[in-house]
Amino acid sequence: MGKVTSEISMSLDGFITGPNVRVGNGMGDDGDRLHDWMFDAKTETDAAIVDEKYASTGAVLIGKRMFDVGFEPWGDPPPFGMPVFIVTHEAREPLPMQGGTTYTFVTDGIESGLELARAAAGDKDVGVWGGANIMRQYLKAGLLDEMQLHLIPILLGDGIRLFEDLDPEGIELRRTSSIETPGATHFRFEVVKSSA
Amino acid sequence: MGKVTSEISMSLDGFITGPNVRVGNGMGDDGDRLHDWMFDAKTETDAAIVDEKYASTGAVLIGKRMFDVGFEPWGDPPPFGMPVFIVTHEAREPLPMQGGTTYTFVTDGIESGLELARAAAGDKDVGVWGGANIMRQYLKAGLLDEMQLHLIPILLGDGIRLFEDLDPEGIELRRTSSIETPGATHFRFEVVKSSA
Repeated sequence: MGKVTSEISMSLDGFITGPNVRVGNGMGDDGDRLHDWMFDAKTETDAAIVDEKYASTGAVLIGKRMFDVGFEPWGDPPPFGMPVFIVTHEAREPLPMQGGTTYTFVTDGIESGLELARAAAGDKDVGVWGGANIMRQYLKAGLLDEMQLHLIPILLGDGIRLFEDLDPEGIELRRTSSIETPGATHFRFEVVKSSA
Repeated sequence: MGKVTSEISMSLDGFITGPNVRVGNGMGDDGDRLHDWMFDAKTETDAAIVDEKYASTGAVLIGKRMFDVGFEPWGDPPPFGMPVFIVTHEAREPLPMQGGTTYTFVTDGIESGLELARAAAGDKDVGVWGGANIMRQYLKAGLLDEMQLHLIPILLGDGIRLFEDLDPEGIELRRTSSIETPGATHFRFEVVKSSA
């Protein structure tokens, strides 16, 4: 069984989007700068990190808001190339796309979503790829094994914070790797569960 | 003339103290963990970073709240060993301590505080050593040349945030160095002023 690993880019001031996120402005104002390391500023090291992520992940979990703002820009085929599970309150039929992605809507909670994603992922990892809310839910519930955090040396000033209203009681992180590229510091943290 | 450089330790979730900061609990609940890299978990590399900081700094600027909660634990001689200027609204006579530190209270604003600190520092740097509020004020005003940020791989959940209510318009950071130790990632950022 693979790991459950979250993966997100965060500004130095703690934001994973700029302000004013909505359909048509999915990363918020200026928020695309968080992903420059994957596009305009990409080095071989950055590219290898992205490749490794796609190679090791067998299914993805995302929140409803991320799906709503991402659906149109991701297009068809979406960039996942693997099953994607959306944790939501709205029941909806599965939505098969091209290139190996089916969007499956899970309405009975994060644990059920994880169970489905694990089954779809087989031996590979399950990726919790955002947004902030679902990531915090998995972290709080003790269901994350690892966090990958790409720290971007910019200040956004406003937007969606990754770490907010989070009671870290019982959650310890162990930094297992840290790689510098011009556009990011790529951290991996093992989530150490004190009950373990 | 030296640089104006801020220096602070921040948790991965963005806090420079734990919750419930007050006299007698200056770093807040669990906030002392932010400074483990300088004490219990100190490596030779961490020690060299601290030594370099003290060697390059000729005068220190701090805020009133940091002075209030720090005064008693710092003791006499205080750990600064150099002139310390406190930006405050309360006028007060200078307070000479042992070991080269005089606490001087500046009531006419951050620019005036900086002018006094520069004069005291001579060729050395002026250090803005906290708290969050005064650091943001110097950053916003375009008066910081460099930020040193020790990112600590812990989650505090609550406390005083370094980056809050900050409009980053016109502030760009250039990461000039990054050093990993077990207890911290030591970043240096040059503050690039767009007007320059």
